[in-house]
Amino acid sequence: MNILIIGGLGFIGKNLTNKLLEYGHKIFIFDTKKPNNSHKNINYFIGDFENIENYKNIFNDVDIVYHLISTTTPNYNKLTIEYDIRTNLISTIKLLNICVEKGIKKIIFTSSGGSVYGEGNKKHKEKDLTKPFYPYAINKLAIENYLSCFYKFENLDYTILRIANPYGANHVSKKQGIINVFLDKIKNQENIEIWGDGSIERDYIHIDDVVNALILSIQPTEEKIFNISSGKSTSINKLINIIQSITNTKSNITYLPKREFDIQKNVLNNSLAKKYLKWEPKISLKEGIKLLYEEIK
Amino acid sequence: MNILIIGGLGFIGKNLTNKLLEYGHKIFIFDTKKPNNSHKNINYFIGDFENIENYKNIFNDVDIVYHLISTTTPNYNKLTIEYDIRTNLISTIKLLNICVEKGIKKIIFTSSGGSVYGEGNKKHKEKDLTKPFYPYAINKLAIENYLSCFYKFENLDYTILRIANPYGANHVSKKQGIINVFLDKIKNQENIEIWGDGSIERDYIHIDDVVNALILSIQPTEEKIFNISSGKSTSINKLINIIQSITNTKSNITYLPKREFDIQKNVLNNSLAKKYLKWEPKISLKEGIKLLYEEIK
Repeated sequence: MNILIIGGLGFIGKNLTNKLLEYGHKIFIFDTKKPNNSHKNINYFIGDFENIENYKNIFNDVDIVYHLISTTTPNYNKLTIEYDIRTNLISTIKLLNICVEKGIKKIIFTSSGGSVYGEGNKKHKEKDLTKPFYPYAINKLAIENYLSCFYKFENLDYTILRIANPYGANHVSKKQGIINVFLDKIKNQENIEIWGDGSIERDYIHIDDVVNALILSIQPTEEKIFNISSGKSTSINKLINIIQSITNTKSNITYLPKREFDIQKNVLNNSLAKKYLKWEPKISLKEGIKLLYEEIK
Repeated sequence: MNILIIGGLGFIGKNLTNKLLEYGHKIFIFDTKKPNNSHKNINYFIGDFENIENYKNIFNDVDIVYHLISTTTPNYNKLTIEYDIRTNLISTIKLLNICVEKGIKKIIFTSSGGSVYGEGNKKHKEKDLTKPFYPYAINKLAIENYLSCFYKFENLDYTILRIANPYGANHVSKKQGIINVFLDKIKNQENIEIWGDGSIERDYIHIDDVVNALILSIQPTEEKIFNISSGKSTSINKLINIIQSITNTKSNITYLPKREFDIQKNVLNNSLAKKYLKWEPKISLKEGIKLLYEEIK
């Protein structure tokens, strides 16, 4: 198949691309920066997501579009609220219009399992109340709703994956992704810094499991929104114990003041993806960290 | 108090203004068109909502802001999707930034009880899943979420009223508001046209009850989102029976094909507003229609 990955050079995009190439698909990548190492079997298109309309011709022979791009992160910055709407939400509307015009079979969108649900002690299900408060997550949710709108009125098929906290190889950001950040610090023998007392719990999912879910989403799906998660919660303190035991190190840990708006616990129920995507997470947290540490070393 | 009503010349705005004047408040109105009859005790400011930043000085002495304006309606029009985001969502972000800058005590927003919840046979509660598919409703929900964002990070207090199907005096649109449209048709001895078989059920709420809820929202509220509704569902056929009995007429009714995307039933649970706003609907559907028919005649 011909597959276009919007945001193909990010963390998820790189891992997805590698796997799709193994399967023999023809890959087109649209992203904002040139690749460090370009691959001869990939067609790259470099531009701003806002100008996606100038790249309509890329879509001519494309079957499936992955929408992985985001111009912002889950933080609050008063100065980028409008920018976030313009560059993520409005650009996505332009993208959806192109997909309709070019007869794209399906669009697959990565939403944020970590930030659309808000606070809550139980495992979030896809049909639970959403309560985003970061602009990043508000726009993720608005895009989800526009996907449902374009499906109803324009017949554009879609699947949404609400991904928990992904970690693994090819991580791009030096700030996001706590497991990758901690392993980098350990490698460089730097202090580990934690906001709060380390009791915050998150749901970590290995990137290979995320990639499998993204590939399984190519098929038509009865349900449209799936949590992609381990379904297990791990506190930061427990995570550090696991990492120290695997890496056989003992890092200095600095506990910084708790950040007011960090959610205490975020865990996602993944039974819908198991049932309808025939997906399940295969890599345990310990295995995943081992794999990643081997690569980083 | 000094009260600014954004969209003060619309259906809800006109009724709200009249009541606030009775209570002796000082009223500022921002809207896109000049009033037909201007009131000497009101300060009018006419402009596009997109340019609200040019009207910052209006906010200098304002205590409370009502955000009632919408540049679009709950319909699907492919050509206005981006326009809707720019003129409603981004303009609201500009408005919220001004409110923060000018130290506004509270902003009160009219959301759409009829279109944020989507399909469902039971009475929707405020904490139920939202499932908007019209761009109008997707943006109403995004604005709701941005209000929660500005409350968390900028300390701007707010209340959201998700209003069911309001009807009553001073209706502006000739197309929206089925009760007003039907009574106009009866007055002009025109045919009544219905999409579908008339079995569709809605929750009709008199505008005076809506206005009371808007005024009760000036106080600080423990909860932030309230359904404003009668809590009762009425089919279109039953509605026509009531109207014909009150007006003592027998109209010709034309049944048009069902519209694919009309929700079959929309009724809202109003117990949260009863508990926290100390509000309750006081005007029954029969009384409300009688009142309106007297005025229209």
